Amino acid sequence: MFIVMNPRSTTEQVNHIVRLLDEMGVDNCVIERAGRKGVEVLGANGRVDCTALGKAPMVDRVLERAEPILAAGRQPGDRTAELPLGTNASIGGPRLGIIAGPCSVESKSRLLEIAAAVKDAGAVSLRGGTFKSRTSPYSFQGHGERGLEWLALAREETGLAVVTEVMRCEQVDLVARYADVLQVGSRNMHNTHLLAAVGGQSKPVLLKRGWGASLEEFLLAAEYVMLEGNSNVILCERGIRTHETYVRNTLALAVVPQIKRISTLPVVVDPSHGTGVRDLVAPMSNAAIACGADGLLIEVHHAPNEAWSDGAQSLDLEQFRSLMDRLKPFAKAAKREL
Amino acid sequence: MFIVMNPRSTTEQVNHIVRLLDEMGVDNCVIERAGRKGVEVLGANGRVDCTALGKAPMVDRVLERAEPILAAGRQPGDRTAELPLGTNASIGGPRLGIIAGPCSVESKSRLLEIAAAVKDAGAVSLRGGTFKSRTSPYSFQGHGERGLEWLALAREETGLAVVTEVMRCEQVDLVARYADVLQVGSRNMHNTHLLAAVGGQSKPVLLKRGWGASLEEFLLAAEYVMLEGNSNVILCERGIRTHETYVRNTLALAVVPQIKRISTLPVVVDPSHGTGVRDLVAPMSNAAIACGADGLLIEVHHAPNEAWSDGAQSLDLEQFRSLMDRLKPFAKAAKREL
Amino acid sequence: MFIVMNPRSTTEQVNHIVRLLDEMGVDNCVIERAGRKGVEVLGANGRVDCTALGKAPMVDRVLERAEPILAAGRQPGDRTAELPLGTNASIGGPRLGIIAGPCSVESKSRLLEIAAAVKDAGAVSLRGGTFKSRTSPYSFQGHGERGLEWLALAREETGLAVVTEVMRCEQVDLVARYADVLQVGSRNMHNTHLLAAVGGQSKPVLLKRGWGASLEEFLLAAEYVMLEGNSNVILCERGIRTHETYVRNTLALAVVPQIKRISTLPVVVDPSHGTGVRDLVAPMSNAAIACGADGLLIEVHHAPNEAWSDGAQSLDLEQFRSLMDRLKPFAKAAKREL
Amino acid sequence: MFIVMNPRSTTEQVNHIVRLLDEMGVDNCVIERAGRKGVEVLGANGRVDCTALGKAPMVDRVLERAEPILAAGRQPGDRTAELPLGTNASIGGPRLGIIAGPCSVESKSRLLEIAAAVKDAGAVSLRGGTFKSRTSPYSFQGHGERGLEWLALAREETGLAVVTEVMRCEQVDLVARYADVLQVGSRNMHNTHLLAAVGGQSKPVLLKRGWGASLEEFLLAAEYVMLEGNSNVILCERGIRTHETYVRNTLALAVVPQIKRISTLPVVVDPSHGTGVRDLVAPMSNAAIACGADGLLIEVHHAPNEAWSDGAQSLDLEQFRSLMDRLKPFAKAAKREL
Repeated sequence: MFIVMNPRSTTEQVNHIVRLLDEMGVDNCVIERAGRKGVEVLGANGRVDCTALGKAPMVDRVLERAEPILAAGRQPGDRTAELPLGTNASIGGPRLGIIAGPCSVESKSRLLEIAAAVKDAGAVSLRGGTFKSRTSPYSFQGHGERGLEWLALAREETGLAVVTEVMRCEQVDLVARYADVLQVGSRNMHNTHLLAAVGGQSKPVLLKRGWGASLEEFLLAAEYVMLEGNSNVILCERGIRTHETYVRNTLALAVVPQIKRISTLPVVVDPSHGTGVRDLVAPMSNAAIACGADGLLIEVHHAPNEAWSDGAQSLDLEQFRSLMDRLKPFAKAAKREL
Repeated sequence: MFIVMNPRSTTEQVNHIVRLLDEMGVDNCVIERAGRKGVEVLGANGRVDCTALGKAPMVDRVLERAEPILAAGRQPGDRTAELPLGTNASIGGPRLGIIAGPCSVESKSRLLEIAAAVKDAGAVSLRGGTFKSRTSPYSFQGHGERGLEWLALAREETGLAVVTEVMRCEQVDLVARYADVLQVGSRNMHNTHLLAAVGGQSKPVLLKRGWGASLEEFLLAAEYVMLEGNSNVILCERGIRTHETYVRNTLALAVVPQIKRISTLPVVVDPSHGTGVRDLVAPMSNAAIACGADGLLIEVHHAPNEAWSDGAQSLDLEQFRSLMDRLKPFAKAAKREL
Repeated sequence: MFIVMNPRSTTEQVNHIVRLLDEMGVDNCVIERAGRKGVEVLGANGRVDCTALGKAPMVDRVLERAEPILAAGRQPGDRTAELPLGTNASIGGPRLGIIAGPCSVESKSRLLEIAAAVKDAGAVSLRGGTFKSRTSPYSFQGHGERGLEWLALAREETGLAVVTEVMRCEQVDLVARYADVLQVGSRNMHNTHLLAAVGGQSKPVLLKRGWGASLEEFLLAAEYVMLEGNSNVILCERGIRTHETYVRNTLALAVVPQIKRISTLPVVVDPSHGTGVRDLVAPMSNAAIACGADGLLIEVHHAPNEAWSDGAQSLDLEQFRSLMDRLKPFAKAAKREL
Repeated sequence: MFIVMNPRSTTEQVNHIVRLLDEMGVDNCVIERAGRKGVEVLGANGRVDCTALGKAPMVDRVLERAEPILAAGRQPGDRTAELPLGTNASIGGPRLGIIAGPCSVESKSRLLEIAAAVKDAGAVSLRGGTFKSRTSPYSFQGHGERGLEWLALAREETGLAVVTEVMRCEQVDLVARYADVLQVGSRNMHNTHLLAAVGGQSKPVLLKRGWGASLEEFLLAAEYVMLEGNSNVILCERGIRTHETYVRNTLALAVVPQIKRISTLPVVVDPSHGTGVRDLVAPMSNAAIACGADGLLIEVHHAPNEAWSDGAQSLDLEQFRSLMDRLKPFAKAAKREL
């Protein structure tokens, strides 16, 4: 059970609730973060009825479970938040946010070639990993800061906003100096300290859903970021792990309209990881936009068969151009611009 | 291993292969169905290399595994098959096949009211179950033949093609007398005798994917139907069972473009069962069409809160009309008519 | 909502409930099977509170959902049912029921060799498929009645009870003439007509859980059998389909003690299909017995690498003998005999 | 593709391989960690055949994929590693390592009461979380260092080894000062920086499998730890997320014998998280030991209904004592001591 206090409640009013709970013999703990306040009732498990506390002064609500979506929640009349993608673009507004680029930043020249091409095809943002989260310690782990410099150079040349992954708290400042958007990968969705760290700086955060995470866990991960003061969170559906074998993951697109029902955060879809199959990326991009996604995250490489990672799901430059062309009527049908 | 014989191969030529295998000391069995012929190599498991048999007269191919998609397979240049939905409509061609109606046929008057409304909103076919496949033997099992009569009456009044489920071999003739399309439900996708029975008559078959079935198993179920001589199979994606809890099933839309790559069979999507949540049906309908579906199967009820089954995922008449309106631009974007 | 009537309730008393529901304006339907009676409330979905009906004469209980486990349910003090495995053995009592044999019955001589060996190692029952449920129509579908004759011969020679699969209603009489236990396979767990057909004869039924089925669906499938009058149902856990890839299925052993908590039906475990990996069969057999299973279903073949199906998960004769030896102390620890 | 160099290979020999790859026009990168050396071939994807490099001097093996289990791998004749659990016990040897205690460390007095009881019942180690990884930022996050002091006090009083979770790199030193074993939780299994941090100190690490992680990913997470020089890794199976709903997770016990086949690391099973249901903990403990687990991790609380977290799956003190009693014959059957 969780007692949501009004943000303007005084310490005395919070203490009053604590005293009432103590008198009832119920363990409890005060939570206060970024101006949000509440009291968690511990270990009661239905033994004690605390609903009467809902009438105490400055108590907003009494929730059955301690898992409220407060910061990211949608109230009637709320609109999806429009968040900046660098200085030239945004996500969550009328224009779709198309983010494209290689899985790994491999070299300066390759990155610049890809960046120029995706910009030319209509992307507003460049993706590329230079701190790589790899399953195996024996796999290439990324070029590190050198890759960040190349990404910044690509932004300078093309005007594309830079989206790149940050993997550890200590890297947050460094990555935030170069990137326009900090990506938290699927493997780190439950890394609450990293979530807090990216929440403690001001650049927007692109948060990928863990492949084994529930929707509630996904939104609560966003709360971890937002409670540190950074409300610029972009959610990314990238497929979940199921019994299907013809795809790398099962792209659970229904999460897009469901998030729109309960949260104001913008949502992008990653059909590259979400399928793992190059030929499925374009049709699933159309589908993502048709069910309400605010943007796409797409892996593009000038020579996918030679890509250092994720080649099988990367589009070549011409395929990406074609995807953008075919996407146009669907963007229009969804009343969005491309 | 499976040796695909040319359909024009003679018995002597097939026996020649059998003799060669016998000499190699390998168990085998001849398969012949609806003009398709082959020899399955049994128990070799890589012990014996049969690839040389590929050069024998009238051998088309030697496959590593005994699971070829022969009847439903797509060759380069093939188009999706256009199959009749009753006498006034079709599926797989330019016009989308929208099939709508109640989960259960509850009464004559309710069915006629729903049928008139979905027809008016643009549906070309009426769905409704009168032999119900229920998890519990204590649940309502359907009105049986009486329901079929009401469905036929609804067709007479509206011109809508009738799609209804058949659950057992003995019912196939009866259902085929009334219905335009015979539905095989998810729970029966692996019921090979029912598949053969609907394959032995000429009405089109709408085959729903089992919620635990792989794509390969889904297509092989279609092969079971087609090998009996009925090639009019419509595939239906209706969601798979995963760890997600905010939906009844996870709608695995990537299966739509994947089927288009490997099979000529038309595909419809059932976003009602595929989500189990009324508010998600419209956006997922848009997504289904955007990634290439040939039609939709949607549960509609005049009073969903009073529906005998699946009320939580049924649209009311106005919601269905609105869905059809909002679907139009996506149909156009997909170069389809509605 | 489902109103469970006392089995001794009169038609008038049932009609009384129906009248009360009619007056409340609630659709309903009477269910009566094998002496069990109830009234399903249709389409109310919480609109109407029927709990007061619990006080009407001869109403046993009012259930929130129409999915009671009535026939298979366990009441306090109930013991697991002990069901016959042929004339010489049983399952559910002190002695474990070990059922072993080939996936497919391949030939008379091979079957007799395997039967003699598993008997010698301590099995009490012989498994072997002669009507095979195969994913592909191009795979060997079994020897049919000829295989049944061989199975009966093996019983004559060894005294082992015969367990074999039945796939369609029309085969039930034939298979029941030869077999001691009729197996319903995973693919047919939802085939309610087959469930009813095996429920309409008296031989025990071994019901395998569908790989995508919930526990509730599994038990309700048993209800379908039992409501026809045959209460001799043996449940079989054989693994579910998950994201794991090093096994063919994930053996969900917790289902064993959970079934023991809520049902009186005996449970066997199939570690062969449940893992798909020969080397995992013995340790998972130990685990199955340790958590309360009443028996095992194990694939054994004299030459697994030449088996016509499931070779990779079949034990050879020596491996089975060794499994039985190593199982003994675990059987004893579980206070069971082997 | 990954070229495993002999640990004694010289820099010149590694450079020789790099030169050969450069000449073949193939991107590559040298990996060297904790004395293990290799060259990853990047982006070749079967374009280039590097198997001939297997004959170059000091090349041990050429692997198709860059995901070798080197540090944790089992060679023929290897035995499971026996790792210390504090000063009085070990895991992986003849005696089973039973680790028990509360989910959260709630207060000093409660912890000491529980510790005394689990010690008395036969546990060799005490678990208890004081840095808690919680789904919701609004949930109690643990007592922090104060809880560590209480855990150390409990060890002093009982002699039990302390197992407690570490959630971030900065905490590693602190936690290592107090704990005997550092636990990395499911949510952090993919947090490669935390893995490296616990690998950089010398206390044993208990690594829990991510609920969505494959077995290969699980073992590669152990490699991340071991490559930093700490080879004392205990693996813990705690259930995976599937479609099952009567349990919190599906306990995938087959992973235990499979790990034994391919790795020398000891394995414990957590039946508390692995089922989420108190009554299933004891039977699944028996099963875990029966299939080869080296120990158990069990949640115990003096008053489970008042536990601050995970009450539904916690045993009370008497239930734990009873579990230990009933486990004894299974330990003996598995030729282990308790």
